[in-house]
Amino acid sequence: MSDNSTPRPIESYPHVSDIQTRWMDNDVYGHVNNVVYYSFFDTAVNRFLIKGGVLDIHDGVVIGLVVETSCRYFAPIAFPQSIRAGVGVSHIGRSSVRYEIGLFSETSSEPVAEGHFVHVYVDRSTRRPTSLPEEFRALLETIRLSA
Amino acid sequence: MSDNSTPRPIESYPHVSDIQTRWMDNDVYGHVNNVVYYSFFDTAVNRFLIKGGVLDIHDGVVIGLVVETSCRYFAPIAFPQSIRAGVGVSHIGRSSVRYEIGLFSETSSEPVAEGHFVHVYVDRSTRRPTSLPEEFRALLETIRLSA
Amino acid sequence: MSDNSTPRPIESYPHVSDIQTRWMDNDVYGHVNNVVYYSFFDTAVNRFLIKGGVLDIHDGVVIGLVVETSCRYFAPIAFPQSIRAGVGVSHIGRSSVRYEIGLFSETSSEPVAEGHFVHVYVDRSTRRPTSLPEEFRALLETIRLSA
Amino acid sequence: MSDNSTPRPIESYPHVSDIQTRWMDNDVYGHVNNVVYYSFFDTAVNRFLIKGGVLDIHDGVVIGLVVETSCRYFAPIAFPQSIRAGVGVSHIGRSSVRYEIGLFSETSSEPVAEGHFVHVYVDRSTRRPTSLPEEFRALLETIRLSA
Repeated sequence: MSDNSTPRPIESYPHVSDIQTRWMDNDVYGHVNNVVYYSFFDTAVNRFLIKGGVLDIHDGVVIGLVVETSCRYFAPIAFPQSIRAGVGVSHIGRSSVRYEIGLFSETSSEPVAEGHFVHVYVDRSTRRPTSLPEEFRALLETIRLSA
Repeated sequence: MSDNSTPRPIESYPHVSDIQTRWMDNDVYGHVNNVVYYSFFDTAVNRFLIKGGVLDIHDGVVIGLVVETSCRYFAPIAFPQSIRAGVGVSHIGRSSVRYEIGLFSETSSEPVAEGHFVHVYVDRSTRRPTSLPEEFRALLETIRLSA
Repeated sequence: MSDNSTPRPIESYPHVSDIQTRWMDNDVYGHVNNVVYYSFFDTAVNRFLIKGGVLDIHDGVVIGLVVETSCRYFAPIAFPQSIRAGVGVSHIGRSSVRYEIGLFSETSSEPVAEGHFVHVYVDRSTRRPTSLPEEFRALLETIRLSA
Repeated sequence: MSDNSTPRPIESYPHVSDIQTRWMDNDVYGHVNNVVYYSFFDTAVNRFLIKGGVLDIHDGVVIGLVVETSCRYFAPIAFPQSIRAGVGVSHIGRSSVRYEIGLFSETSSEPVAEGHFVHVYVDRSTRRPTSLPEEFRALLETIRLSA
């Protein structure tokens, strides 16, 4: 029924950045709503790409379209907690990349959630898949997960 | 790398309800952001449960915690489109349920996105898994997907 | 300290459209979070402009920038309620428009919330204020509030 | 038509905290959507109250209901910018408080946006206005704005 693989500890991730929770992330049960975790994934990966200089959301010719995402939830989190997001890459294709993301509280190396998403990079105007530029590929190699 | 199974057409879903998009669902690329699809899943399933009388988010003793979600994205959607969400159940356990959801534009039976989420039902105060109440189980049987 | 004017009943609004709530709109106190009301305002106004054919968010030369918003909250609302949004215009300038919005439950003509927002219309590329096109102005006149 | 008062510089605010933007905050025009600013207000104020020990969102007997909000927008912001939120109090009543909030980029003391919101504190179970507890009032006095 489900994916039962053992989740990665924070030490496995080549890149880690901080994510703040917001008041309205909490749902009626008092914890961050499951939808919001994907916003953390999105933010962690795109922040990495933008700060690395390979993604320009306003003027870049290449944009990333999301074609697949998933998340497993292990423990609740709640505003005003701060979260650490681990980011790594498990597959780099001609125009697609699979990112693995782990979310961690500030006090444990065991994840509160783990997921992935697959980006296909397309030409901004034609929206057709395009080969990853060399510098993009080089940046991704710096966060490749060991097998 | 990915799940390549053929997506279900809208006719496969025992329950279908309408979902409106919102202005702020659109992201910088002009389409509904990937995160928002999960909000559609959440809304379609909980609306079904609440209208069916088996989930009371304020006072019910049983609440549903999300433990796993996934989505595959096939085609873009954008505000102000209206979406149809198909909902079915593929597995009913002692305390957990796997919902399958398909999102459709108003004009095609081919999905724009397809995903699932797994709810574990817990006691509101102890937050420990609890057997699904009989009426809950009976409602779920009305939307069981054929194998 | 506050605006104490009497809120408009639904009959005052020249345009009314339906807005669905979503599961994640509910906050930890079990009601739609105050922030989300502005998403309803945004959605109601832009839907009116897009369906009226005067706003093209992808290719139009004129886009609306929000320069001021406000809201007063009179009564709680909660998912899965459906809301009615009344929209009218109280001021049309050379390049700016002040919209008045009222939110209503399905069963009362007294608003659950009332607010406004001011759009300044700018040229998409220069982002400088531009005169409202004639057809835009004509559409707005159809929803002008009586003084 | 509008409030034209001169906005406060960051030095005027007794309390300042950092707010991260998220990928999905950006709307179709490439900037943080107007709705999201209110989420920053909400987050800045409630974070201050929770860290100050006077608001317990899960078990506290007093909760804050928002009855009025407003915002003026002076300059665009965009993901992945980080924002500074200034928070002060301009009015403390028996059960209500008016917060003033300014949002600032990392490089200027001129605000990108300025707004307010009014909280009425109520008993969690009866939802009726209640006198502010002494420690709450004492904490608010530490961020009172000079007249």
